[in-house]
Amino acid sequence: MSLGIATRTAGRNFLFVPGPTNVPDRIQRAMVIAMEDHRSVKFPELALTVLRDLKKVFKTGDGRIFLFPSSGTGAWEAALTNTLSPGDKVFTARFGQFSHLWTDMAQRLGFDVHVLDVEWGEGFPVERMEAVLKSDKQKKIKAVLACHNETATGVTSDIAGIRSALDAANHPALLMVDGVSSIACIDFRMDEWGVDIAISGSQKGFMLPAGLGILAVSPKALRSTATAASRRCYFDLADMIKANDSGYFPYTPSLPLLYGMREALNVIFEEGLENIFIRHRRLAEGVRTAVTKGWKLRLCAKEPKWYSDTVSAVVVPDSFSGADVIDTAFRRYNLALGAGLSKVAGKVFRIGHLGDLNELMLMAALAGTEMAMLDIGIAVVPGSAAAAASAYWRANRDVPLESFDRSCETTQSQAVGSLEV
Amino acid sequence: MSLGIATRTAGRNFLFVPGPTNVPDRIQRAMVIAMEDHRSVKFPELALTVLRDLKKVFKTGDGRIFLFPSSGTGAWEAALTNTLSPGDKVFTARFGQFSHLWTDMAQRLGFDVHVLDVEWGEGFPVERMEAVLKSDKQKKIKAVLACHNETATGVTSDIAGIRSALDAANHPALLMVDGVSSIACIDFRMDEWGVDIAISGSQKGFMLPAGLGILAVSPKALRSTATAASRRCYFDLADMIKANDSGYFPYTPSLPLLYGMREALNVIFEEGLENIFIRHRRLAEGVRTAVTKGWKLRLCAKEPKWYSDTVSAVVVPDSFSGADVIDTAFRRYNLALGAGLSKVAGKVFRIGHLGDLNELMLMAALAGTEMAMLDIGIAVVPGSAAAAASAYWRANRDVPLESFDRSCETTQSQAVGSLEV
Amino acid sequence: MSLGIATRTAGRNFLFVPGPTNVPDRIQRAMVIAMEDHRSVKFPELALTVLRDLKKVFKTGDGRIFLFPSSGTGAWEAALTNTLSPGDKVFTARFGQFSHLWTDMAQRLGFDVHVLDVEWGEGFPVERMEAVLKSDKQKKIKAVLACHNETATGVTSDIAGIRSALDAANHPALLMVDGVSSIACIDFRMDEWGVDIAISGSQKGFMLPAGLGILAVSPKALRSTATAASRRCYFDLADMIKANDSGYFPYTPSLPLLYGMREALNVIFEEGLENIFIRHRRLAEGVRTAVTKGWKLRLCAKEPKWYSDTVSAVVVPDSFSGADVIDTAFRRYNLALGAGLSKVAGKVFRIGHLGDLNELMLMAALAGTEMAMLDIGIAVVPGSAAAAASAYWRANRDVPLESFDRSCETTQSQAVGSLEV
Amino acid sequence: MSLGIATRTAGRNFLFVPGPTNVPDRIQRAMVIAMEDHRSVKFPELALTVLRDLKKVFKTGDGRIFLFPSSGTGAWEAALTNTLSPGDKVFTARFGQFSHLWTDMAQRLGFDVHVLDVEWGEGFPVERMEAVLKSDKQKKIKAVLACHNETATGVTSDIAGIRSALDAANHPALLMVDGVSSIACIDFRMDEWGVDIAISGSQKGFMLPAGLGILAVSPKALRSTATAASRRCYFDLADMIKANDSGYFPYTPSLPLLYGMREALNVIFEEGLENIFIRHRRLAEGVRTAVTKGWKLRLCAKEPKWYSDTVSAVVVPDSFSGADVIDTAFRRYNLALGAGLSKVAGKVFRIGHLGDLNELMLMAALAGTEMAMLDIGIAVVPGSAAAAASAYWRANRDVPLESFDRSCETTQSQAVGSLEV
Repeated sequence: MSLGIATRTAGRNFLFVPGPTNVPDRIQRAMVIAMEDHRSVKFPELALTVLRDLKKVFKTGDGRIFLFPSSGTGAWEAALTNTLSPGDKVFTARFGQFSHLWTDMAQRLGFDVHVLDVEWGEGFPVERMEAVLKSDKQKKIKAVLACHNETATGVTSDIAGIRSALDAANHPALLMVDGVSSIACIDFRMDEWGVDIAISGSQKGFMLPAGLGILAVSPKALRSTATAASRRCYFDLADMIKANDSGYFPYTPSLPLLYGMREALNVIFEEGLENIFIRHRRLAEGVRTAVTKGWKLRLCAKEPKWYSDTVSAVVVPDSFSGADVIDTAFRRYNLALGAGLSKVAGKVFRIGHLGDLNELMLMAALAGTEMAMLDIGIAVVPGSAAAAASAYWRANRDVPLESFDRSCETTQSQAVGSLEV
Repeated sequence: MSLGIATRTAGRNFLFVPGPTNVPDRIQRAMVIAMEDHRSVKFPELALTVLRDLKKVFKTGDGRIFLFPSSGTGAWEAALTNTLSPGDKVFTARFGQFSHLWTDMAQRLGFDVHVLDVEWGEGFPVERMEAVLKSDKQKKIKAVLACHNETATGVTSDIAGIRSALDAANHPALLMVDGVSSIACIDFRMDEWGVDIAISGSQKGFMLPAGLGILAVSPKALRSTATAASRRCYFDLADMIKANDSGYFPYTPSLPLLYGMREALNVIFEEGLENIFIRHRRLAEGVRTAVTKGWKLRLCAKEPKWYSDTVSAVVVPDSFSGADVIDTAFRRYNLALGAGLSKVAGKVFRIGHLGDLNELMLMAALAGTEMAMLDIGIAVVPGSAAAAASAYWRANRDVPLESFDRSCETTQSQAVGSLEV
Repeated sequence: MSLGIATRTAGRNFLFVPGPTNVPDRIQRAMVIAMEDHRSVKFPELALTVLRDLKKVFKTGDGRIFLFPSSGTGAWEAALTNTLSPGDKVFTARFGQFSHLWTDMAQRLGFDVHVLDVEWGEGFPVERMEAVLKSDKQKKIKAVLACHNETATGVTSDIAGIRSALDAANHPALLMVDGVSSIACIDFRMDEWGVDIAISGSQKGFMLPAGLGILAVSPKALRSTATAASRRCYFDLADMIKANDSGYFPYTPSLPLLYGMREALNVIFEEGLENIFIRHRRLAEGVRTAVTKGWKLRLCAKEPKWYSDTVSAVVVPDSFSGADVIDTAFRRYNLALGAGLSKVAGKVFRIGHLGDLNELMLMAALAGTEMAMLDIGIAVVPGSAAAAASAYWRANRDVPLESFDRSCETTQSQAVGSLEV
Repeated sequence: MSLGIATRTAGRNFLFVPGPTNVPDRIQRAMVIAMEDHRSVKFPELALTVLRDLKKVFKTGDGRIFLFPSSGTGAWEAALTNTLSPGDKVFTARFGQFSHLWTDMAQRLGFDVHVLDVEWGEGFPVERMEAVLKSDKQKKIKAVLACHNETATGVTSDIAGIRSALDAANHPALLMVDGVSSIACIDFRMDEWGVDIAISGSQKGFMLPAGLGILAVSPKALRSTATAASRRCYFDLADMIKANDSGYFPYTPSLPLLYGMREALNVIFEEGLENIFIRHRRLAEGVRTAVTKGWKLRLCAKEPKWYSDTVSAVVVPDSFSGADVIDTAFRRYNLALGAGLSKVAGKVFRIGHLGDLNELMLMAALAGTEMAMLDIGIAVVPGSAAAAASAYWRANRDVPLESFDRSCETTQSQAVGSLEV
């Protein structure tokens, strides 16, 4: 079968990897700026309001925002090196490629990482963690690292539950949360959940290009920086605080990203954070309905409680490769899907449904995925995704966040395909 | 039924009116330019190559290109006033809103217009015209005005046939063709078809914003300007020729549109004109299949020979209004469809499928249209458009222009809905 | 002498032709938009507010604004053909290339043009006109055409004086004013001055690319359209009124220019119209001081009362050519100056000082002009322009419009160079 | 004295801080892109050619390029942590704020830094270093850190000389060079000079926004990464190599900056690296002539051999503050100058003359600086900068890099003002 690009790449590329996400035109426009002096008397007006308004997105009052010229990976490192000393014990769970990478980083940076491995498709093992914490009588564990939304498997974990477990164990460990693919898409409550460091990046819910590592840091975590002996300089929070206090940065910031973030925050507040969560829930449920009821395929996420509202990993039937779906979708239909990574490589493909998105964009993605699957021989029913998603979206309009029909649960258990990882 | 905008306007607007069309990013970029001196020594390089390369799109060797700062309507006027004198007899046919408007203009500008009214849904009546021409023994008819693609009804007419009829009648009338919604999308052969003035605009096949009226004028038509007594100044071809000859314009041109046109021509030549025609045919047939086989609705165009590859007017079932489909699609699904105009107002809605387009963009449009129809009670089968279009596109890949399955013919005759206009 | 481009075209081009003018970044950004349906329910919000707010710039309450996809030349034609009938008598004065072209257009469109020729360098001859009007006992003159700011010579005429003369003659002729290079830069008071049609374009004071012809039309002028027998269609005001009344346009408008105009109006109102006039006066006086006191050259404008605040035409010493100054400035210094046109070709070069401009932009222009003059052998004192302009600008800060030092008068009379045209 | 913004901020801001520099329009355009899948089959084409072509700018054949989402500061850190182990001895010299900051970083990251303090205004003390190296019999010094162009004082150091000294001492230390404000502006020869790590950022000679830390690393330095025990993860070269080898990045890259870099490289190669060096030399000498011959002020750089072609630090007369010049220039004239930092705070202001620049842009900067100085009472002669710079530029055209008149030397010694730091 020829996989040449049939009709050149006329028309729009449909970007459905789980990040970077589509940049809305008005944010794109806001980044088309002439360079300016980042040490001018005028500059702090921009910097200070951006730093202030980001707190609302993290739902924090006491927390302090940090913006690093880096990817989200850099923000992971900043979180660890600013609060911990080499040899410090940290707890984490690994249930996908991104929780794996953060774990790996913690090990490479010299921490003593207690890692629980969890089957991919499930989320953070709150109860198992609670047991570990309770057994840590000497409170040697200095931090718990949790991936809020595991982008590799499409699994969202229960951060509020982690906090409850920490409290139940009366454990003082810092709670550090990777919210790269959740924050500004899925509800995240830094203060209410007692998160000490929340980490994000510019290229997902914030609808910007990559390039800003974002941290929200609690007063408790900030205090820990005084004694944290890990070497750091570029990512040093103290340097940043000193410059930020007067509205500046310790080194040349990316002006387009700062102006873009200003506009992204405007966009977010105009839609309303809670409306954004509802939209992501509604769109995600439509996708899941298309996958499970339409195509009768399984999600990598094992149970509805793990379903991610920002990304769905779809398990391909046994004799097929997710990579072929992705390749065909890209070459023939100008559609970019996310690949299965590491343990689930070839077994899944991923549909990102986060950021600036609506029903018809997803209809295009579902149609393209369906055609690509048919092209390589996967026997889904043509039009079934559109039928299922449209039925869902038409029936679930203007409902509160908790009231969406989430009946994919049943369908899922009856679907063909399995994922042994 | 509430038609409030349910999920704000997150995500991309899907633009499927038959113009303006989507501007590809690289053309968008090309228009982001600083102003410059349009009388500089450097400017002619841009102007002359644009004027030269446009000839290829019109498939003319001898013809001369004119670019006016105007809409396509202005180019209509330029065609008439530069070649005709008040009272001159012109022949035209009226079978949709745009052929009507050009007719109306010709009357208002003082010409003696012989107009044949044709049922909307059909195209230019070549045989009836030939009869008229043959009876015009004194060759009083100075021009034939023909709308190549009637955007209001989705009907493409046979320009080569008109030329044959003119030749058969041995008639010297100028042949003026409105190719606003056809040129650069549907095959157009100025020299081969003996077209004297071909008219287009920047906002359809050229994938630019509106603002450039484009004319290609044959040597014969240019000669007629010497004696044409219609008053004209802004649209005077002679002024334009004098300035263009050295690469300038008689008044300040729109620099972004000129730079945009330069890039549009690059885009067109990179895909290849013939490939563009094939893509438009293929996409259009998919849409027609979705409409007739999927939804079992009728097209306004009465027969396959009239089917337009750039726009489809879809007849809504009797008790419904096309305006409701359009309004629901726009408010709920961020989808812009074209309205039924004049005689077919409310009876049809239109899907533009021209310019920078691919399968998935159309899948989004079809899905949104389907949802909107379902929302207002039109009993189409959910998913039927996606099923039909995807089957068509998957089965018709890499085929030459004349080899596409055009079996919609049969379906069309069996479809529900009728259009008495 | 080699005039090759010495240091390639690194760095910014300095655009000092009197239009198009520099587009500020925020207006540039506002034009980077996706196309949209210009017949949507949402569109009128944009169109209606733009049409409404433009009235403030023309200082009219009763007048009606029209926006045509055209250059300013198109707006000239719209003014004439909508209000006059072929053979109607119109009065005008010719004192530069643009007043010449409008006169020429009026003749070609079939009006009986009574034209007074005035020496270039002077402005509209109010008294001579008054005499003509008074002798027109039968009120045969239907319109007076006046060029507010003659861009070719840098001369501003007294429109209020023309109104007084019309009133003194008790003459009902329509007063049509070309404000292409004055409106939004120099004070213009449509209602107070009894202007019936004011004409402008997007590419000067409005800081946009060319492409919008703008008219403000008084109720009296609108009434005259009912009987005006000139043929018109594209530029027909009645068609425009019908569509505009509901917020639409009779043919596809240029969306980038409309969004750009929205932002241009925001920019104008933020600075404040009166502040804009003061800025133009202040900058212009600095330029004139540099020319006359610094370089000791003459302006084409013969007396201070004619000095234009938007463009200065500088007379080159006898044995030199303005064209050489312009060519050297462009090739060597990336500076675009305006050429002398027609009667003053070669005798002057022009510095546009209108639109989005500040002192340092002009300093660059003056320095580049000075270097180009020195390069071709004109013996100006190096640094003299910067010294004179900086002295002027530093001494004239925060003064009201009428209080600027305008002492160039004296200098002018002592300057070398003469202009016999 | 009121320093209010007199004429609002109409017109262009003149950016003359020594970075970020002005982004040329065509690079600006190249960054206006839709997001795309950075793991697609298509992506490596972009990444690999950018990485390959950057080698030409560093003049390296064997070296390997690394692009980090970071500022130049991040690249400093990457250089140190990838090649050194905690406690390793490094040699450096401190003669300005940026050489100070890199020194400080090396200390904070746990290295044993041997630092020579040099008077600000001078450059890297090659001979003193050679003595130190020769006395390092045990070759304990693992790296020499040198700042090629000290942005704080406008001083360029002799990297070739450092290599000679290393060779003379037969010393194996790695040579790490900060070329943030020199590379792509001033000649830099990585291979010829035996540089092991060259560091730059996107926001200076590369004419992009900040956000890319750039390293060119020699094979020798790459080998040292195997044993370097410094903890690193985000900046780990090994991770980057693994991903880069196939054309990808270990974490989401900034797509606009990559596309921008592609275009920046096109721009650089079109002008030609050597022409760029000549242009910077020529422009810089003009500025220095204006400062020393025109204003009769001193440069911070003590001798011509230290003069930087990318930035000039100008010493203000004793009773004045550089901060007042900067503040007045910014508020009144929309001109951004660089501040004096640390030891020279208040004593100097800085004019950046690097990146996409030409004569007239500098004329604007000089004029604005001159007006600001006059405004606060510094008795420079009005117009003297324009006179001096224009004389220089007019006299020094089309000369080879080494042939420019560099006679500022004499002037400098006679100038008023002194800098005791």
